[in-house]
Amino acid sequence: MFRPAIKVIDCTVRDGGLMNKWQFTDEFVKKTYDAVSAAGVDYMEIGYLSSEGAFSRKEMGPWKFCAESDLRRIIGDGEKKIKLAAMADIGRIEYADIPPKSESSLDMIRVACYVHQVDSAIALAHHCMEKGYEATINLMAVSTVGLRELNEALEDLNKSRIQVVYLVDSFGAFYSEDIDTLARKYIERLPEKTIGIHCHNNQQLAFANTIAGIIAGVNFLDATLYGIGRGAGNCPLELLLSFLKNPKFRVRPLVQVIETQILPWQEKIDWGYYVPYMLTGTLNQHPRTAMAHMESENKNKITDFFDSVTSALDMD
Amino acid sequence: MFRPAIKVIDCTVRDGGLMNKWQFTDEFVKKTYDAVSAAGVDYMEIGYLSSEGAFSRKEMGPWKFCAESDLRRIIGDGEKKIKLAAMADIGRIEYADIPPKSESSLDMIRVACYVHQVDSAIALAHHCMEKGYEATINLMAVSTVGLRELNEALEDLNKSRIQVVYLVDSFGAFYSEDIDTLARKYIERLPEKTIGIHCHNNQQLAFANTIAGIIAGVNFLDATLYGIGRGAGNCPLELLLSFLKNPKFRVRPLVQVIETQILPWQEKIDWGYYVPYMLTGTLNQHPRTAMAHMESENKNKITDFFDSVTSALDMD
Repeated sequence: MFRPAIKVIDCTVRDGGLMNKWQFTDEFVKKTYDAVSAAGVDYMEIGYLSSEGAFSRKEMGPWKFCAESDLRRIIGDGEKKIKLAAMADIGRIEYADIPPKSESSLDMIRVACYVHQVDSAIALAHHCMEKGYEATINLMAVSTVGLRELNEALEDLNKSRIQVVYLVDSFGAFYSEDIDTLARKYIERLPEKTIGIHCHNNQQLAFANTIAGIIAGVNFLDATLYGIGRGAGNCPLELLLSFLKNPKFRVRPLVQVIETQILPWQEKIDWGYYVPYMLTGTLNQHPRTAMAHMESENKNKITDFFDSVTSALDMD
Repeated sequence: MFRPAIKVIDCTVRDGGLMNKWQFTDEFVKKTYDAVSAAGVDYMEIGYLSSEGAFSRKEMGPWKFCAESDLRRIIGDGEKKIKLAAMADIGRIEYADIPPKSESSLDMIRVACYVHQVDSAIALAHHCMEKGYEATINLMAVSTVGLRELNEALEDLNKSRIQVVYLVDSFGAFYSEDIDTLARKYIERLPEKTIGIHCHNNQQLAFANTIAGIIAGVNFLDATLYGIGRGAGNCPLELLLSFLKNPKFRVRPLVQVIETQILPWQEKIDWGYYVPYMLTGTLNQHPRTAMAHMESENKNKITDFFDSVTSALDMD
């Protein structure tokens, strides 16, 4: 019943860290690493790969950088239990700061880019592949990209040596029919590549849209523990593994780490279904206005937020 | 772009009341009535229709009964702004206690039943129609019903005079593909009837499954403000109206009433996405064990809950 080509990528630390500047304790990251490994997850995206000069370590936690010394603390002395991935943003990592694979615990670099950055992203991803890593390109915010631009980007990606290209719903704006349409387009235009999907949950559709992707033929699936992630969060990993039929997956380790590590964070940061995130999703907008509103003292003044985002539309 | 046959039913007070024994203030119910009317919603299900002898008014709030005097307080002196519905459970309402439509503010009675109660449900619904009401039959918990039983029930319903039959995912156990399969079956077996859908959100699929129903041809859509309802709750009304294309729908009144009436209830009762509700959903179980766990002092001990529901499975 299951499709062996399906791989699951846990993005708890990387996407969840967008909510707390990656200020997770080593215990949090280690428990997550142990749990997703025990659950049979294929990759753990443990943070961003950034040059030390790009951000301050005073402000950002270690998982904004993913230095080898940080990774080693998590892996410990034993054998590595799961493939590790890190995301790279264009312009935040110097080529020279990427170690060769032989000196790194990372297995895969995921290059995130907007459509106008596709050329730079391909160059960076090729560079990572030359250094020995697997590489993906995660084309963000495609819900705002015109058809011609998207086709051109897919043509460039098709000519590249990149093996995995992601369909990313950055704003949580897509319905399942949109995912179906786009996933089929990606598969058609990139016939030799694997397609991945990364969804946001603004409209409570991250899990449903991930399933829609699976049905259309997508094989790399992103999810996070209890859906932790920027704004409304992501596809919940525990739901995804419950759905998938591969007998190697186990849900109990996920429930356990949600109990000990994730629920305490829920007291401190507000990811999940909230009206401001829902509204930017339905309006196909970046969640930054909703995140600012949620961090303000007036987070429950949702009618004011509705008026501000919809009156801005009138002015456009 | 929109389908005029689609009708939206707000179940905020009826399904939300399962979490607080319908102890909503008149202000809450009146503000909900005003808001869903202003939003263009077609029906408001305001509670259960029960005989006074079936429950104690000391324990249950007025919306467990929907007496005409209670309804009149909400409607006030002006014209009624929206069609009103009440749910009837087999055995909890005596025929004699149902007033003729001419003496009632209710427009529609929705008879809830399990598959073995279909004959009684049809009789009660016919009785309501003879008294002048619209009537629906909401066949609950079909995720646990065998194929032969379901086919027989649909055959009985097809022979009846009932005009609307609901596909109900009581346990929040269905994926969109299940909804598609069942909705098409209902439509095929009940060619002259309207099909409705009522989803629960245990797997964050209530909205996605409602959309799957729409695509399959379902035209009566249940939802609640901010998804309030039993356990994981229901399809959020604000998401549904944002999705539907009928220009008569307005989201702002919903955001406003969520702010003033629903968010305060969120401090007091736990509906929504919680691991215990998720687990009973994935296991296709009644949420009663999850609700008991959530009401206990150990609600965050979710690994214990996981072990208790999965070890019970081993014993079966």
